[in-house]
Amino acid sequence: MTANQNVLVVGSVALDGIETPFGRRNSSLGGSAVYFSWACSLFAPVSVVGVVGEDFPKSYISDMDKRGIDTASLEIAQGRTFRWEGKYEYDLNVAHTLKTELNVFQDFKPKLTQIQKNAEYLFLANIDPELQLEVVNEMNSPRIIALDTMNFWIENKRKELLQTLKKVDYLLVNDAEARQLGESPNLIKACNKIFRMGPKIIVVKQGEYGVTVFFSEDNRKKIEVFTAPSVPLESVMDPTGAGDSFAGAFMGYIASRGSIENSVLRQAVILGSVVASFTVEGFSIDMLKKTSREDIDKRFKYLKKISHFESIKDGLI
Amino acid sequence: MTANQNVLVVGSVALDGIETPFGRRNSSLGGSAVYFSWACSLFAPVSVVGVVGEDFPKSYISDMDKRGIDTASLEIAQGRTFRWEGKYEYDLNVAHTLKTELNVFQDFKPKLTQIQKNAEYLFLANIDPELQLEVVNEMNSPRIIALDTMNFWIENKRKELLQTLKKVDYLLVNDAEARQLGESPNLIKACNKIFRMGPKIIVVKQGEYGVTVFFSEDNRKKIEVFTAPSVPLESVMDPTGAGDSFAGAFMGYIASRGSIENSVLRQAVILGSVVASFTVEGFSIDMLKKTSREDIDKRFKYLKKISHFESIKDGLI
Repeated sequence: MTANQNVLVVGSVALDGIETPFGRRNSSLGGSAVYFSWACSLFAPVSVVGVVGEDFPKSYISDMDKRGIDTASLEIAQGRTFRWEGKYEYDLNVAHTLKTELNVFQDFKPKLTQIQKNAEYLFLANIDPELQLEVVNEMNSPRIIALDTMNFWIENKRKELLQTLKKVDYLLVNDAEARQLGESPNLIKACNKIFRMGPKIIVVKQGEYGVTVFFSEDNRKKIEVFTAPSVPLESVMDPTGAGDSFAGAFMGYIASRGSIENSVLRQAVILGSVVASFTVEGFSIDMLKKTSREDIDKRFKYLKKISHFESIKDGLI
Repeated sequence: MTANQNVLVVGSVALDGIETPFGRRNSSLGGSAVYFSWACSLFAPVSVVGVVGEDFPKSYISDMDKRGIDTASLEIAQGRTFRWEGKYEYDLNVAHTLKTELNVFQDFKPKLTQIQKNAEYLFLANIDPELQLEVVNEMNSPRIIALDTMNFWIENKRKELLQTLKKVDYLLVNDAEARQLGESPNLIKACNKIFRMGPKIIVVKQGEYGVTVFFSEDNRKKIEVFTAPSVPLESVMDPTGAGDSFAGAFMGYIASRGSIENSVLRQAVILGSVVASFTVEGFSIDMLKKTSREDIDKRFKYLKKISHFESIKDGLI
């Protein structure tokens, strides 16, 4: 474990109540930092900055410790843990939020240790952009800062979000969020606008349709694209955490390779897609816990197989 | 031109009134058989079976003749041509039908010549499934029968559609139609059900998210998948005809290769995706007319580039 492999994630740690057509769970382990760190730990050492309440089961923390996730900065505050209750309908596409209790998360102030400030890879999960900026400002020079956000912040804290985005290298958002932030129904036009906000790489998550990544490194003159399929699944149990486990595997693999060259980035996207596919096959982190690197390797090869096509010999001309 | 390259399409020939945020056109050349045959003719000889009215501009027919599209069975009936008026909103995803005048199309009875009955590749564009079945029954043994349909027939003529599907090799539908026909929000489950209706290959068109193809050749025990991206476009002028020009290029390439092996099928899907990308960059067949095989070759290579990723050396284990 070398220093430059360290990944730091700042985000929510939650107790989720989730109902899908295939079952329901109460107070199960959730939150963006949890999904991220479980996925990331498949590839690289990861440290969590977050807060839970006194009601947070100790076993969840010891599970994370056993996994090798650094929980030293997971604060236990007086009060109750952040709780989210959501429901998915039959098509599993949209999460309907039934209840959000911020609880101890309301007054969350990320506190970073000296070692964490030296992390080379920082993931700012979907929290208030002002908090995200505070974290960025505490860091010594990380190699890559990646950020996730959502419609709520794009609508209600656009100015603050734009301030934060100036310092961000990679933006990870879903399809609708990219179009909303870039103010265009056309994804390329939207991303062209987002590039001018700061990020050099935009990872657009498209659910079961896969992931499209937009790069702009040559002075934003020409947009490059990488498009990755998702793993076709016959049985999706609970889509919660797909995006965060994508991000965890994506960042973890980049950190493990210590490289941001194009071929590594593409593999990282595919691995993100693969790890997310395992996440959604169970509730909470049930499947993430069981997933081995061998399982991941198999689905990586499967994605290669189902997206492969041969060049046309001698072209068409 | 060998006999087995011949493609036959039965479908609508229309005069379209189209409004998009980028302009409007009145009485422009449209219809499924038109988009299909212009796209198909890039790869293989194609014959159109359809009907137009006396108001149909002769120049449209001579354009098709010049292109080498066989219009001998394009009947000119007394009355007015089928007219469709539609509008696309800013996001271009949904066509809002403003007006449909069936006119001469109402009493359309496909009439096939002896040569056409011997065609080896038949595309049944989106028309009444009873008419589609009549055409199938007139054919001598075609090698491949492909069919397109829509929500209207799935809802209102399900029984007739299921009769027709029994004789069909390839089904080409959009995402929502596949889920509707297969009665499941999960695409794999929906396709599993559709396989039991007859088709051996299901091509699911997903608009800007690309195309996913499901195969089931080994007694429907295991579904195989091929997933293809769409060409990312910064400027989409008019989405009309995307699906039919996809189908035209797809069938045309398969006919030109005279093979239905897996690698040819994959290339055919990519070529369909490429040709559709040109179609939507202009109104009517404006762009299809101008598109050369060299243009297509370039975008084929571009799709290869943007979807390529390297294997992980020695795997992850």
